[in-house]
Amino acid sequence: MPIEYGHLETTGRLAAWELKWKQGDPNPPHIFWDSDVAKWMEAASYSLIGHPDKELEKKLDHVIALMEKAQLPDGYLNTHYIAVEPQNRWTNLRDNHELYCAGHLMEAAVAHFHATGKRSFLDVMCRYADHIDQTFGPRPGQKRGYCGHEEIELALVKLSDATGNKRYLDLAAYFINERGQTPNYFAVEAEARGEDPNKMRHQSRQYEQSHLPVREQKEVVGHAVRAMYLYCAMADVAAATGDKTLLDACKRLWKNVTRQRMHVTGGIGPTAANEGFTTDYDMPTETAYLETCAAIGLVFWAQRMLQAEVNGDYADVMERALYNGVLSGVSTSGDTFFYGNPLAAYPGMNGQHYASPDYHYRRSPWFGCACCPTNIVRLLESLGSYLYSTESKSLYVHLYANNRANIDLAGQKVAVTQETNYPWDETVRMTIAPEKPATFTVALRIPGWCRKPGLSVNGKAVSVKATTRKGYARIQRRWEPGDVISLVLPMPAERVVARPEARQICGRVTLMRGPLVYCLEQVDNGRALNDIRLPRSAALRCVKGPKSLGGIPAIQATGLKRKPEGGSDTLYTAQAPKHVKTTITAIPYHLWANRQPGEMLVWIQE
Amino acid sequence: MPIEYGHLETTGRLAAWELKWKQGDPNPPHIFWDSDVAKWMEAASYSLIGHPDKELEKKLDHVIALMEKAQLPDGYLNTHYIAVEPQNRWTNLRDNHELYCAGHLMEAAVAHFHATGKRSFLDVMCRYADHIDQTFGPRPGQKRGYCGHEEIELALVKLSDATGNKRYLDLAAYFINERGQTPNYFAVEAEARGEDPNKMRHQSRQYEQSHLPVREQKEVVGHAVRAMYLYCAMADVAAATGDKTLLDACKRLWKNVTRQRMHVTGGIGPTAANEGFTTDYDMPTETAYLETCAAIGLVFWAQRMLQAEVNGDYADVMERALYNGVLSGVSTSGDTFFYGNPLAAYPGMNGQHYASPDYHYRRSPWFGCACCPTNIVRLLESLGSYLYSTESKSLYVHLYANNRANIDLAGQKVAVTQETNYPWDETVRMTIAPEKPATFTVALRIPGWCRKPGLSVNGKAVSVKATTRKGYARIQRRWEPGDVISLVLPMPAERVVARPEARQICGRVTLMRGPLVYCLEQVDNGRALNDIRLPRSAALRCVKGPKSLGGIPAIQATGLKRKPEGGSDTLYTAQAPKHVKTTITAIPYHLWANRQPGEMLVWIQE
Repeated sequence: MPIEYGHLETTGRLAAWELKWKQGDPNPPHIFWDSDVAKWMEAASYSLIGHPDKELEKKLDHVIALMEKAQLPDGYLNTHYIAVEPQNRWTNLRDNHELYCAGHLMEAAVAHFHATGKRSFLDVMCRYADHIDQTFGPRPGQKRGYCGHEEIELALVKLSDATGNKRYLDLAAYFINERGQTPNYFAVEAEARGEDPNKMRHQSRQYEQSHLPVREQKEVVGHAVRAMYLYCAMADVAAATGDKTLLDACKRLWKNVTRQRMHVTGGIGPTAANEGFTTDYDMPTETAYLETCAAIGLVFWAQRMLQAEVNGDYADVMERALYNGVLSGVSTSGDTFFYGNPLAAYPGMNGQHYASPDYHYRRSPWFGCACCPTNIVRLLESLGSYLYSTESKSLYVHLYANNRANIDLAGQKVAVTQETNYPWDETVRMTIAPEKPATFTVALRIPGWCRKPGLSVNGKAVSVKATTRKGYARIQRRWEPGDVISLVLPMPAERVVARPEARQICGRVTLMRGPLVYCLEQVDNGRALNDIRLPRSAALRCVKGPKSLGGIPAIQATGLKRKPEGGSDTLYTAQAPKHVKTTITAIPYHLWANRQPGEMLVWIQE
Repeated sequence: MPIEYGHLETTGRLAAWELKWKQGDPNPPHIFWDSDVAKWMEAASYSLIGHPDKELEKKLDHVIALMEKAQLPDGYLNTHYIAVEPQNRWTNLRDNHELYCAGHLMEAAVAHFHATGKRSFLDVMCRYADHIDQTFGPRPGQKRGYCGHEEIELALVKLSDATGNKRYLDLAAYFINERGQTPNYFAVEAEARGEDPNKMRHQSRQYEQSHLPVREQKEVVGHAVRAMYLYCAMADVAAATGDKTLLDACKRLWKNVTRQRMHVTGGIGPTAANEGFTTDYDMPTETAYLETCAAIGLVFWAQRMLQAEVNGDYADVMERALYNGVLSGVSTSGDTFFYGNPLAAYPGMNGQHYASPDYHYRRSPWFGCACCPTNIVRLLESLGSYLYSTESKSLYVHLYANNRANIDLAGQKVAVTQETNYPWDETVRMTIAPEKPATFTVALRIPGWCRKPGLSVNGKAVSVKATTRKGYARIQRRWEPGDVISLVLPMPAERVVARPEARQICGRVTLMRGPLVYCLEQVDNGRALNDIRLPRSAALRCVKGPKSLGGIPAIQATGLKRKPEGGSDTLYTAQAPKHVKTTITAIPYHLWANRQPGEMLVWIQE
């Protein structure tokens, strides 16, 4: 996170708040910049909860002070528009991320308020939210618009929660309900700018999910991050208002993305063309885009669906995305990031078929559009909040990780401790310590990938089968301080295959161990990874992995590789290929591209 | 061809020669248009040789008259520049196809002269060539430039041959030798236009093959059609001047493209990003671009290499490209065309990952950039000239097809008749009839794909092994009128595999019969073609193919397909897949997309 702050400083993103930029100066504040600063502030705030840090708090206070000063009397707050084109406020919601930036600032303000108890940032953002509330709506003189990049909707729900001000929730619902209505606001707005109202990105309003009213949307389409943030907000508003039609729409969209459009890593949005979705079962590998932020968005959405209905399906997807498509976005050193997360890589090719002989797919320290680094940091800093949830007299455990938590349940604090090395190790020892003995339910998620889970309380076996409903083993009993749950989630290495419809990957297997997808890297397996075949009969062995990756479990097996032809340079031949045995070593996908560069492959030929 | 003429008329390409367009009018003559008209004129001229047609000749005369009238006093002739931006002649050779259009007009003029004996068109183009010769060169006041899209080089060699004027050959050599010299002309020219000289398409001068002097180029790079036309001209100039260094460069580039960068169909240039080459062994299938014109260019180049050195390798590639990657460019009805020729297709996807649910990969009647339809027509109309060549007392037979030809050899006419249904049928009966008995060599190409060729003369067996050198069985004897050669080229259906380095296709097989690559279509095999596996042990049967495709030989085999899962909607599973037997039917690749639209697949899982 200090690295992020450094980037914000050196690129001018922080100084932009001083509003010193003048026409003709270089490096004008960009329409994305406020959101980058906001995501760092949000992450920094989460970090303060567990790790108080005066210096960091001071840095935040300094930026907040700049914001207070920059805010216009009517509450408006956006460095790009105030400095660069004040006359054009709210005239291009489709492209210019104005409400999107406001949303990220609101999320950050709420996080800051929860972390520090200070209202400074929150008050700034309430004034801005009030201004937005006056500007947008169905009343005469108001704009019937919504943002081209969803985000403010979910932020307004958080702001409403934090402040108790229901108007913010209503405004979130307004934005959601207005989306995709006829006439399309982006057409109206384009016409007002004197542009062709029918000009659309990729010839469709799907790019920004404004092709249909949200309750009529049945397929996940368009820009993947936008889609995820919209669905998050829909789930939020459904939860806050009890609107079943909105929740039903979420469930339909959830089915579509997780049953037809999600890569095995939880990565979504396979094409760079629209940074988003294509068609059902389209699973490219080397050319797959799978933006880090989209997988993060899927985690956000999964968590919200889990709040609406505790169901292991949501938690399974959340875990899949988190441990694979999200974590791959950051290096083991924590200072470089992937924007896209393909499932195969080949030296010389960047996946979008721009070739350069010296090119290797590597993480970068920063991007011009820096959404992913800041997004991954704010997710990882708030990960604690994804582990548990409560509902009257039930404590749900969604994810397993070494941690201690104090949870409010049924009128008292319950101290929960998990001791585990999950996902490397298959056992979780959980201590449940209510202040005083009480009857409640502890519901433990039994991951969908686990075939033979074992469960005991204080050493006494509990039948998983008998207690499990919708993916959670529900143990209702009188809990006393010091009760110990022992959960064993056997994680043998396994082959996983995709449906026949997934044309690019069918006939191949990926190796998994627990929630982790594995991959082959050239550094362990030599070149021509795609030529390796892994026979169904070959045993999979878990072994200690490379030292430089911390010795985590690797998977080994005996595969087959083509015997090199002696001297012939023929590209195609009618001669039957001969194979020789070869030992293959797979490492967790999220750890790839941390050693010598080379080929990488997730889906192996069977 | 009448269809092409119709398109030229309705799109304004013919009327452009009347030079009536004025600033502000719609549909200004485009920089490509002259080349489209030229390619039609070239094809029409070839057609006149075999099929005299007064009407067609009149149409040509009419266009030529317009050209004569349009030509400026200094010889300059280009509808776009004369009508739209006369002040900008020769200021953007990199992008604006000015010399390229001139080249196509020259090729057409030479074809017209050979077909009709009339000099009308040829004289117009000699005047233009003289103007170009004065404009470009090393002398003071001349431009040291060359075209961003090669073509004029090979055309000037043809013009030199037709007119006996060596200056045109020298100019072709000048353009070739100047290419890639330092300083790069396109940078010089950009600077003169006030543009950034370092701005390059795809960050490199490889796009237009000006990154290095041509004799230092070792890899085929950049835009594929441009590359092919350059190599054609290099081979032409090498042949005409005896420049071995230029021929050696051609041979190195030939090795690179045919050993590392050619799809099994003879298609080249796998990516749409630069309409061209990427890296060695990059063989995408569904996303492969493989422009029809690039495969045509490979045929042109192969023929020229064959003139330089009779070697079956060149003819094999020529035949491969012709019967697969070129022929696939046109429908069986002859009136629709492919611009790109991918090796797999999937409904809803256009190969470049722009998705649309209703999209099917189909041929089009015409394109805004209409290079391919006119190019394929001029190739097919001149196909006769690809069958034979002569060299002192040798007659070479490169391709097999039903035809009669009168060939000048060793001071007399030799009538050659081929009776065959090749490539559907494996026997060729060839009658050799010299005016009077004479001793010479008939050298018959033994295709590289053929393992057990049989050969006889007048019923008496000839050893192919003993007579074959560099892919040609050379029969030297005293030939008498009525001598009959019988050649049998057994063409069983076979599996062909690619080298292990070809990551997208290794582990798969394509079916071939003789020179033809086969493919699976959904209409014959149902959906999810990629899920089909063809075990190595499954016998391949040649059967009579679909009636609607003329009953040509299809290939059948018993493959395996995944058993459909009952009701589960899971995208990924650790359950081992179960397979059931399925009969698969493959048709020749060039005939795909002529029936009901659906999936298509060339490379089948083994």
